[in-house]
Amino acid sequence: MSRGVVALVGAGPGDPGLLTRRGAALLRRADVVVYDRLVDPRLLALAPRRALRIFAGKPSDGGGAEQARINAILVEHARRGLRVVRLKGGDPFVFGRGAEEAEALAAAGVRVRVVPGVTSAVAVPAAAGIPVTRRGVSSSFAVVSARTAGGRSPDWGRVAAAVDTLVVLMGAGRIGAVAEALMAHGRPPDTPVALVRWGTTRAQTTLAGTLADIGGRAREARLRPPVVAVVGHVVALRDTLGGRRVRPGRSGREFAALNAAGPEPAPGGLEWQQGRSRLTRSSRSTI
Amino acid sequence: MSRGVVALVGAGPGDPGLLTRRGAALLRRADVVVYDRLVDPRLLALAPRRALRIFAGKPSDGGGAEQARINAILVEHARRGLRVVRLKGGDPFVFGRGAEEAEALAAAGVRVRVVPGVTSAVAVPAAAGIPVTRRGVSSSFAVVSARTAGGRSPDWGRVAAAVDTLVVLMGAGRIGAVAEALMAHGRPPDTPVALVRWGTTRAQTTLAGTLADIGGRAREARLRPPVVAVVGHVVALRDTLGGRRVRPGRSGREFAALNAAGPEPAPGGLEWQQGRSRLTRSSRSTI
Repeated sequence: MSRGVVALVGAGPGDPGLLTRRGAALLRRADVVVYDRLVDPRLLALAPRRALRIFAGKPSDGGGAEQARINAILVEHARRGLRVVRLKGGDPFVFGRGAEEAEALAAAGVRVRVVPGVTSAVAVPAAAGIPVTRRGVSSSFAVVSARTAGGRSPDWGRVAAAVDTLVVLMGAGRIGAVAEALMAHGRPPDTPVALVRWGTTRAQTTLAGTLADIGGRAREARLRPPVVAVVGHVVALRDTLGGRRVRPGRSGREFAALNAAGPEPAPGGLEWQQGRSRLTRSSRSTI
Repeated sequence: MSRGVVALVGAGPGDPGLLTRRGAALLRRADVVVYDRLVDPRLLALAPRRALRIFAGKPSDGGGAEQARINAILVEHARRGLRVVRLKGGDPFVFGRGAEEAEALAAAGVRVRVVPGVTSAVAVPAAAGIPVTRRGVSSSFAVVSARTAGGRSPDWGRVAAAVDTLVVLMGAGRIGAVAEALMAHGRPPDTPVALVRWGTTRAQTTLAGTLADIGGRAREARLRPPVVAVVGHVVALRDTLGGRRVRPGRSGREFAALNAAGPEPAPGGLEWQQGRSRLTRSSRSTI
């Protein structure tokens, strides 16, 4: 007598090595995997060959109807007694409607389990050599989404001065407006900003600037999603931590296969490559 | 010709299943593991039997001299050509001086690599049924430490109203003062607060209240570290998400073996247990 269950699993920020061990274990026993747009195909490959793989699109974009459809899929398969893994980019509870999915499942009487993941808000800056906290430089950070429900913007006036480091998710097309708002509310124009695209993947690139010029730079580079923006003095630490100018990243075919848009690194970016060494390669082969 | 390298690896919030696959792979090939106070012994057991295990204490507590000693240990072993894993609780760049260690290593010419981890700031609330973001309830969160360098407090006036959800790390003994400061700067006294102790471990307990009464409750319960505090309306979602009253958590001998203080769950706590089901147990056996 098997009862179904849905595990909301954080897939991590992009690099498949950053999935948790529990997430991997659950995938290996999944009957059904329901996955988002930015999930790496190598993670889907962890599930048994017989497992049903269902592409759920990008719920943060979709309306309530699309989210209701995803919820219905999860409930339906769990009620058949199946082990369902709902694989979500980053952490399930950092934007992306994971909480709503958990609530809908609980309300439907379906057993639900949440497996936290490595959040892009912290890991993508780190991959670009930027620590969100650093003693004497940043003792606080905030995470906001440039896209909020119903098209409302975050209250930049409240957020601008509140913390040392500000991480803005889903802001590829809006960074100019975000920078203007932050300056209008008191952040100095020379505050360093980094835009990290496809962070933690091989296609990772970083575009750096200041609040004053980052909007123009992003436009010139025709920066497209997925991008994590970091604002604050910690951005300057990426030089200390090994940031260096490199050729634009590799094209990352594995992503292109999954995503219509595909990764196209912004030109002239910066990338933290220090430590991508023998140890890196040898460890990659094992996971 | 092997050159040494130091990998700063995030051990995750406590539950050893929340280590990343890359972190596990690096541990399995480590020659030396330098670990912090809250790291689970089951993670140390992943390293080869011959690996040298060095306890580094709790660097966020120690002064500059202690941190210099840790840096020297890392540099020394890397220079001998060894593969060193520096295992840090949570994520290496969310407090805990990870950035300083990376800088010291880079300055000494040692190859350094950062492997992000699941941060307690997000995963501990999640384990208590609390999502840090939820559409319509919270579209932003901030993470601060109640302890900052040199004993300075965070600027609660700036932080209080800036974000919907506030996560306070390392605040077990200061939650009363933090709550007072947040109310003094405009947060309503009935704002929900949860204190989650030993989050994600078997000893997890949650003590809930409001800004007005949480200080008294924490005193009564003699709450001791490690505690993550969550402030905001998302705390109320833990009922929807399956929070329910349970007996005090198990004693977690595995932690007591490592930590002098040992885990002693606060009485009368709440714990999210939904989904600790057959799937949970069977998956545990594999990782």
